[in-house]
Amino acid sequence: MAWDTEGTRRRLKEAATAEFAEYGRDGTTMTRIAARAGINKERLYSYYGDKNALWEVVLADELDRLAAAVAVTGDGIADIGEFAGVTYDYHAAHPELGRLLQWEGLTRGPAADAERRTAHYREKVDRFARFQREGVLDPALDPAHLVFALIALAAWWQTVPQLAEMITGLPGDDTAERARRRAFVVDAARRLAAPHQPTDQPLLP
Amino acid sequence: MAWDTEGTRRRLKEAATAEFAEYGRDGTTMTRIAARAGINKERLYSYYGDKNALWEVVLADELDRLAAAVAVTGDGIADIGEFAGVTYDYHAAHPELGRLLQWEGLTRGPAADAERRTAHYREKVDRFARFQREGVLDPALDPAHLVFALIALAAWWQTVPQLAEMITGLPGDDTAERARRRAFVVDAARRLAAPHQPTDQPLLP
Repeated sequence: MAWDTEGTRRRLKEAATAEFAEYGRDGTTMTRIAARAGINKERLYSYYGDKNALWEVVLADELDRLAAAVAVTGDGIADIGEFAGVTYDYHAAHPELGRLLQWEGLTRGPAADAERRTAHYREKVDRFARFQREGVLDPALDPAHLVFALIALAAWWQTVPQLAEMITGLPGDDTAERARRRAFVVDAARRLAAPHQPTDQPLLP
Repeated sequence: MAWDTEGTRRRLKEAATAEFAEYGRDGTTMTRIAARAGINKERLYSYYGDKNALWEVVLADELDRLAAAVAVTGDGIADIGEFAGVTYDYHAAHPELGRLLQWEGLTRGPAADAERRTAHYREKVDRFARFQREGVLDPALDPAHLVFALIALAAWWQTVPQLAEMITGLPGDDTAERARRRAFVVDAARRLAAPHQPTDQPLLP
């Protein structure tokens, strides 16, 4: 039955996401993923191919969710600070994504799903360059570096949580501290990227 | 002979640093470390204790080197941008440090050498707070968050090298791109943290 196939596929992918986030691509096995899902290993292979193919699917899927959650609309970017804040929220709520990206960083070699992701980022950089021409973002910055830095400011807290706790003196699950970190990220993004003289601000009389 | 003991200890620690950076604490073994150093495993145990103790020593040692390289002198901070630039240089030249911190981030649980590192960061945050009172850094920012964000801007490139390459279109070992990234980090740190109206700047007539 079709719904059953879909359900099985979804359970397998959820199990793969959890295992890969916990142990990395090299540290987990198809056997463990199948066992976690409670589904026959042959089914896992027939649906997703080998472990590398499954890793690509999981990364691509997680990044699609992130992209959908923090999408900058075609019309413009109202506030670079809020864009960074939403990215921070997403990473705070989905630590498995940060872990997958870290495993990828530690595993040298090409990125998963590289062609599609590169195209996605190229489009984002082009859009940021347009916002610069429109005066919404400071035109003095390299737009690619700016995109990268905003991700750094938003995601670094999840990447090195022990470091964040040692520096701030508070754990990442402290509600008030989490809100302060978010406010800092929003403020930092604006300081970094917003034009120093907003074009819509009237000149002083 | 004393020199021999020192040399053996150093070789063991270098081998441990390389193995831990490559495979993480959980992914390597004392046997591999001893084999890499070409030294008897019993010697490794007698010098450094168990694997967890050795991991603590390696982390502490690598972080001491970083701290020495990017030390902010007691007198003040001439330029927050150059501080971020030097931190960027250090991480770019020592990718093993970034990898060790990432392994730590992926391994949940307490940080290695936590007490000493926490004291080190507390001192750094206090110093940044003083620079804020002195008008060298913008007083509106939380000094702990600022310290953390400057590390993020400097270290993120090494943490997710594939992401950096997809966004910029250039690999991290491209000399010109590496220089541009450094210049961006310096500029970003100044935009983020420098007072918007430097106190040593004469008022307009």
